[in-house]
Formats: sequence, C-alpha cells, structure tokens
Amino acid sequence: MAEVNLSKLCEIISQAGFPTTLDGKDIAVTAVNTLEDARKGEITFLSNPKYASAIASTKASAIIAEQNVEIPSSVSAMRCDNPYAAITVAIIAIHGHRRHPTWGLSEKANIDPGARIGTNPNIAAGATIAARTTIGNNCTIYPGCYVADGASLGNDCTLYPNVTIYDHCQLGDRVTIHAGSVVGEDGLGYAPHGENWIKIPQIGITILGDDVEVGANCSIDRATLGRTEIGKGTKFSNNVVIGHGTKVGPNCMFVGLVGIAGSTTIGKHVILGGQAGIAGHLEIGDNVQVAGKSGIHSDVPAGQKIFGSPAIEVRRAKRSAAIVKKLPEWTKRIKELEREIKELRNNLEGDNSS
Amino acid sequence: MAEVNLSKLCEIISQAGFPTTLDGKDIAVTAVNTLEDARKGEITFLSNPKYASAIASTKASAIIAEQNVEIPSSVSAMRCDNPYAAITVAIIAIHGHRRHPTWGLSEKANIDPGARIGTNPNIAAGATIAARTTIGNNCTIYPGCYVADGASLGNDCTLYPNVTIYDHCQLGDRVTIHAGSVVGEDGLGYAPHGENWIKIPQIGITILGDDVEVGANCSIDRATLGRTEIGKGTKFSNNVVIGHGTKVGPNCMFVGLVGIAGSTTIGKHVILGGQAGIAGHLEIGDNVQVAGKSGIHSDVPAGQKIFGSPAIEVRRAKRSAAIVKKLPEWTKRIKELEREIKELRNNLEGDNSS
Amino acid sequence: MAEVNLSKLCEIISQAGFPTTLDGKDIAVTAVNTLEDARKGEITFLSNPKYASAIASTKASAIIAEQNVEIPSSVSAMRCDNPYAAITVAIIAIHGHRRHPTWGLSEKANIDPGARIGTNPNIAAGATIAARTTIGNNCTIYPGCYVADGASLGNDCTLYPNVTIYDHCQLGDRVTIHAGSVVGEDGLGYAPHGENWIKIPQIGITILGDDVEVGANCSIDRATLGRTEIGKGTKFSNNVVIGHGTKVGPNCMFVGLVGIAGSTTIGKHVILGGQAGIAGHLEIGDNVQVAGKSGIHSDVPAGQKIFGSPAIEVRRAKRSAAIVKKLPEWTKRIKELEREIKELRNNLEGDNSS
Repeated sequence: MAEVNLSKLCEIISQAGFPTTLDGKDIAVTAVNTLEDARKGEITFLSNPKYASAIASTKASAIIAEQNVEIPSSVSAMRCDNPYAAITVAIIAIHGHRRHPTWGLSEKANIDPGARIGTNPNIAAGATIAARTTIGNNCTIYPGCYVADGASLGNDCTLYPNVTIYDHCQLGDRVTIHAGSVVGEDGLGYAPHGENWIKIPQIGITILGDDVEVGANCSIDRATLGRTEIGKGTKFSNNVVIGHGTKVGPNCMFVGLVGIAGSTTIGKHVILGGQAGIAGHLEIGDNVQVAGKSGIHSDVPAGQKIFGSPAIEVRRAKRSAAIVKKLPEWTKRIKELEREIKELRNNLEGDNSS
Repeated sequence: MAEVNLSKLCEIISQAGFPTTLDGKDIAVTAVNTLEDARKGEITFLSNPKYASAIASTKASAIIAEQNVEIPSSVSAMRCDNPYAAITVAIIAIHGHRRHPTWGLSEKANIDPGARIGTNPNIAAGATIAARTTIGNNCTIYPGCYVADGASLGNDCTLYPNVTIYDHCQLGDRVTIHAGSVVGEDGLGYAPHGENWIKIPQIGITILGDDVEVGANCSIDRATLGRTEIGKGTKFSNNVVIGHGTKVGPNCMFVGLVGIAGSTTIGKHVILGGQAGIAGHLEIGDNVQVAGKSGIHSDVPAGQKIFGSPAIEVRRAKRSAAIVKKLPEWTKRIKELEREIKELRNNLEGDNSS
Repeated sequence: MAEVNLSKLCEIISQAGFPTTLDGKDIAVTAVNTLEDARKGEITFLSNPKYASAIASTKASAIIAEQNVEIPSSVSAMRCDNPYAAITVAIIAIHGHRRHPTWGLSEKANIDPGARIGTNPNIAAGATIAARTTIGNNCTIYPGCYVADGASLGNDCTLYPNVTIYDHCQLGDRVTIHAGSVVGEDGLGYAPHGENWIKIPQIGITILGDDVEVGANCSIDRATLGRTEIGKGTKFSNNVVIGHGTKVGPNCMFVGLVGIAGSTTIGKHVILGGQAGIAGHLEIGDNVQVAGKSGIHSDVPAGQKIFGSPAIEVRRAKRSAAIVKKLPEWTKRIKELEREIKELRNNLEGDNSS
C-alpha cells in the first residue's frame, strides 16, 4: 500500500480489534517511522511514556497515542488504548512483511532427487536439500542453507541464509529461522570414562512447532533420545542455546543469549530476559517471567517473576540487591554494635564489682 | 545392527568394561529410547533417580538400571552399576554413529589445485578448500565450509555445514566441528591510541587437538602471536567463545555460551557450566569445576569447585546466596539490636544517674 | 618485509609516534613472537609485568620493553614507554595485515545484474550479491556471504565467510566482519495479543560506521523503525548480540558474548567486558567501563566504572562482594550480639529486681 488516508487507517486498525478514532485532519501518510526520524507525510506513535517529550519536536504528520497524551494541533492524532498494537497494524497495512527474492527452484540449488518439494518453492542457488527431505508448500530457502537427510519443513517456512537443519529434524508450518542458526546439532552427550568422554550417538531429533521464529546464530540441540521440542508460537532472539532433550512450551519469548541446559521442561508463555540461564533437568511453570541475566538452579512454580543468580522472587531480589550495595555500611553498624555491647558490659561489670 | 537380543547386548556392554546381567526374558530390541517415549520392542534406562517414577508407566520392553531399582516383572531388566555408560554402549551397538551423505570429492566443491587432499575424501558441493591446505584421510566436509589458506585437518575429521577454518589453523585427528562454528578468526587485538583502536595483525594460529568436538556457532580466536590451543579430547557445547592466546587443557567440557577471555591457561579435565565466564590472563588448575553462570576474575587452584560472580568455593557460595536472600530480615535484626542497645544504655544511664 | 634490522625498526616505531631506542646489538629479526614461543632471530616484548619472569628463559634475540625492565645482555633491548603500541607497529612492519586470496569477480559468485560493484572487486565463488546492492571499491567478500536486496558496503570492506547482510543495511568504509556474523536480522518485535505474539514487520535498517570491526557469529538486529547504529571505529569480539533500535557510539569495544537489548543508547568509547548485558531503553554515557559479567538495569552516567548485577560502582561492588563471601561469619556475629544483648538485659533486669 503506497499511501493511506488516516480515516482508512483508523478503520483498518479498529477492524483488527483495537478501536481507534481520528482527532485531526484526514491526511494521507506514506510510511511509519519513529518520533525522532519521522518526516512530513509519515505517521509515528507513542507507547512508552518515557519518550513523550519527543512529541514536541517530531516532524511526523500523524501520531497514534492514548487519549490523554497531549499532541500539537499541527499533528493529526489517532487515539487508541493500545498504541503499540495499533502501530503494528499500521506497519503491516502500509509496509507489509518482507518480500523475498524470487528464485523459484533455482537450478544452482543442490537438491537431491529424492527430496519431496511442495508447490511454489522458492529455493536459492547455493542451498542444499538432502535426500529423503520433505519441504512444504511456499517455502523460501536462502543461499547457504542445508536441510539434512530426512528433515522436514511444513508449509510457508523461511530459512534465511546459512541456516542448518540437521537430519530428521521437523519444522511445523510458518516457521522462520534467521541467518546462521542451527537446528538439531549434537548435544553435549558423553559418558565419562575416567577423564575421557565417550561420545553418545545423539539419535533423537528436534521439533519446532508452527509459527516458531528463531533469531540469528541460535543453536538448538537434538535430543540424545526422543525429542527436543519448541512449542507453537514461541519466539527466540539471537544466539539462544537450547540443550538436548529440553522441551519449551508454546508462546514463550527468549531474549538474546539465553541458554537452557538439557532435559529441562518449560511451560507456556514463559519470558526469559537476555542472558538468562537455566540449568538442566528442571521444571519451569507456565507464565514464569525471568529478568535478564538471571541464573536458575531449581524448579520454578507457574506465574513467578524472578531475578538474580540464583534467581529469587523479583521484589525480594531487588531489596536484597539494594542491601548488598550497602553491605560496607551494614558491617560498620555491626562492628559499632559489638563495640557498644562491650562497653556496656564493661560498665555493667564495673558497676557490679563496685 | 537392526535388532539385538538382550543376552547379546549384555555381552557387548560387559565386554566394553561395564559388567551387565540380564534379569528377565531374553527378547530382541530394535531401538533405544527414553522412559517416556519408548515403545514395545525398545530398551530404555534409568540413570538419574529423579525419573524413577516414570518406570511404572514406560512402554519399553527392557530397562537398564542399577541392581536396587524396582522394575515391573513385565519388563526385562538389565542390571549394571553404571547405567549411563551401559546405555551409551547400547546406543552405539544398536544405532551407531551418524552416517554422512557420500559425496566423494564433489565436482562442485571449490578445491584449490594446491590443496593436498588425503585418501577417501568426502567433500560436498559448496565447500571451499583454499590453497596450501592439507586435508587428512577420511574427512567429511559439508557444504558452506571454508578451509582457508595453509590450514590443515588431520584424519577422520568432520566439518558440519558452514564451518570456517581461518588461515594456517591446525586440526588434529578425529576433530568434529558442528555447523556455523568458526576457528581462527582475529581476536580483539587493538592497541589503544587516544580513543582510537589500532588493529594489531593477528599472526598467531589456533590448534585443536585430537578428538576435540566443538558445538554449533562457537568462535575460537587465533592468537595474536603464537597459538590458541584446545587440548586433546576437549568438548564444547554451542556458542562458546575462546579469546586469543588462551590455552585449554585436554578432556575439558564447556557447556553452552561459556566465554573465556584472552591469554588464560586452563588445566586438564576442567568443567565449565553454561554461561560461565573467565577473565583474561588467569590460570585455572586441573579438574576445576565451575557452576553455570559463574564469573571468574582470579586464578583458581586445581580441584576447586566454585560458583558465583566473583566465583568462590561452591558450598560457601550457596550459604552466602541463602543469606543474601534473607538480607532484608537480617537488616531488621541489626536495627532491632541498635534499638535494644540504645534502650539498655538509656536504662543504664538512668540507673547510674539515679 | 622479510627481515628488518633493529635500528631500522626503532626508526619505524619512533616515526609512528612511540620513541624507541636500541640498547644492544643491531641484529636483523624476521618475526615477532611471544616470550614463550620466540626463537633465535625473532623479536618479542614485555607489556604486562605479570610475565616478566619469562624473560630469563626466552630464546628471542630482541625484546621491546620499558626502560626499567631488566633484560639479559645476550638479548638486544629496544626501550619504549609503550611496548604494546611499539610491538603493534613492529608486527605491522614485519608481518603486515592478512592477505586475502585473489578472486577478482569470480564467475561462480551469484551477482545480480542490478548490483553496482565498485572497482577492484574481490568476490569469491559462492558469495551472493542481490539486486539493488552497492559494493564499494576494493571490497573482499568470501564464500557463503549474502548481501541482500538494497544493502550497501563502502570502500575497502571485508566480509569473511558466511556473513549475512540483510536488506537495505549500510556498511561504511573499511568495515570488517568475521565469519558467521549477521547484520540486520529482525529483532524480537512482537505485539502481545493475549498469549500470542503478533509479528511487527521490522522495516528499519542497521548502519555500521567506518572502521567498525565485528567478530565471528555476532548478531546485530535491524530497527523496527529507523536505525540500529554502530558508531565509527567501534570493535566487537565474537557472539555479541545487539537489539533492535540500539545506538552504539564511536570507538566502543565489546568483548565476547556481550548482549544489549533494544532501544538503548550507548555513548562513545564505552568498554564492555565479556558477557556484560544491558537492558533495553537505557542511556549509557561516554567512556563508561563495565566489568565482565555485569548486568545493567538502569542508566549509567558518563565515565563510571561499574561491576555486578545489578551493576554498581566497581570499588563498592568489590567491597560488597568481599563481604558477601563472609556473610556466614557476619550472621554469626549478629546472632552472638543478640545472645549478648539478651544476657545483658537479663542481668540488668536481675539487678533491677534485686
């Protein structure tokens, strides 16, 4: 959509489930941009009140914001209770999702004759599809991708450049994997024998559910036996590492550099902040929220919000951290108490002996 | 081996050094699987007592377990003091290690005429082997790998897709590197000059010893001068980062997202938990064990088990962490003491002045 | 330069701005090496006093060191106040920077006819340059690299193997990116809708300034709207993750596994130790220094040196950490105080009641 009138945009956003009203001139806009970067003819938004002061200097022609946000009269306001959802709908309406190059089934892709390729393939030169693989309909596979023996992709999947899917791993429908990520490599499976490590063949697989999106340079181990599973609708940022046999529920969100050891089970809609880590063989309940940098060494019941390493309930963690910062002062107070007690005791003994 | 009788399997495992006896019907099994996923005709195991309750509901036909573990009479028991080692032998016997595709020396691989390639090569289309390289016998190199000028691989090495070996780096025999990992990139070597950074040519190399296995998306810097070294038999999980000039001893095991800065020396059989980090220019002794998420800022003597950031002896770290969690209560107790002392002092002064 | 006399080397280093004088025989040297590995005919250096004891046993023929460092008379000394800068100049003079293979414009590279390629290209077989891209003069692009639609590289850039540059991202002049790194992948941009995540098209871009160097397996998100920016002269080690919309100033240095969430602004010449993490929507001032493993959850004023998670001023963090280590003893002292107070109180009450 090259350009759209604000009244039409209000209609589109409202129909998507986020009632929006126009409060100002019904002009046409051609792009969505940030408060800082938007120019004339563009629309922006305010969701985080931290940035409210930037409204005064924005060059945008329209702003989506909540009812109570003050907006200069020169700018058309679009009022919505959920500006973040509204701007999402606006971006999709005006810009759409990424359009991939059109390769069809490139002659320079290395496709094994035994691979089963769905309708409408878009597979680039320099991609390799090995034997006994199944590629669903409408899949886009960029150069440098490798889909190994017996692996399968559902419909409408996208593999960005240099993604590797190891043998027999399974991707659902609409799975998107960003550049450099790896699915199904061997986990750290060795039996100790004295100081040596005997490799255990990793004969399990990895399964990614429908609508999973994986960032760049992630590594998701295959299981030693059975399956490593990532539930439907779960999203990973970059350089996330998942150990062998771990099962992640649906609709989770893991920020960059999260690491989960093997054989851990994670519920649904669990949110892990950046660099959070979870040890192996644990159970993490539904809707748990973990602050960035936390380290989890024991089971976490559903619904908890935790922070720290070892992670504890987040408000307690913050109070403890505030005290840790003041420990030099607290130890002085303890020493002072010891001094005073001694003095009191001396006085008292003096009294008693008198 | 398509299927094997339990009596034969006992024999194989016992011969491997782990005496095992059959306690039940001598049936044939066709696959190894988890307690949860195993079906009729499959064998499973119990190593971690945490999962003992799953035995009652397993559909497996046979279980390897220690002598004292209770097993339903419908399931054939195989008794062994080390079930984890036993199941490893069973997996190797029944399933074997991964079989790679057979490419021979693909015509679509980009191999420099000056490369020296050993016997029985298995090098895929889309792999690049640069000038002056040496590739040992029986090496498997997947698509997208790049072996740079002057680098060498020993015999029986495997490079999974999109692995990069920088110039002049050396891999021993039986080295396995998973997809996306990089060996020998430049380290963070700059001389500060005011606020600018002058790049120092990184003219050293990286050496991986025999039987090293590296996970996916790891990055192992070359040395500025001399060598970065990873000792024989050492195993890395995924996204592990090793700084320039660091020397890691033999038979170490590093879990995912471990980071080691430059010029650190690590002994043999050191185990680093996930996301553990070690600063530069340190000495870590043999057999040190570091819990996940720990940060090490000073030398660690051999044999220590440590945790925390900065990391300290693990039991002390746990005791301290338990107290940190209760610091709000401890500070209340200190304030109460202060109140009481003041009261006592007042009373005493009252007494004395009376 | 195959070999160089020490007197000539002194002249070169002095002219580079680091006055150096020869104190010993004016011999020729052929290579720079470490104190430990250097052989006859090679030159080494001492910068970190920690390694001074290795001077006695070095086989080097020459050493660059500060005036006051004792050097055996058999070794030629070169005296300089900044041995680290001096050896940098020596390495450049004797060894030079890496020489890349010469591919010209390989016929086996996949270059879109609409790509604009500068003079003197060096683009390997198996590299892909998409439509509407601009590649500056003298760029080296290794196999497996993908430069997507509309992206641009300045002059004298180097992309090592398997680097992916997403659509419309922009690299300045002399940008170097090591193997496996990804620039411009989608960030974790989703609008929550119940427990589901609605993907927000990431229509912003990523810009890397002149002289940026990025290590291996890094991931630098594109912005949702506007730009993710990495300032001129900034250097990253490996597996560094930068969130969407984050702006990093010039001349920063980030060690391995650093993670920065989205929409954070970082000043100039900020140094982040390994595995340090910064939450989203923060402001980090100029010249801030963050110790390895730190976690930053709030704004940091310019010039601060911080450590810990949550990170605080470094000396205070160290004092607090030392006390945390001793918390079991401190709690004993508190309990002892409580016992003593009680005893005193009892005595006192006994006195009073007598």
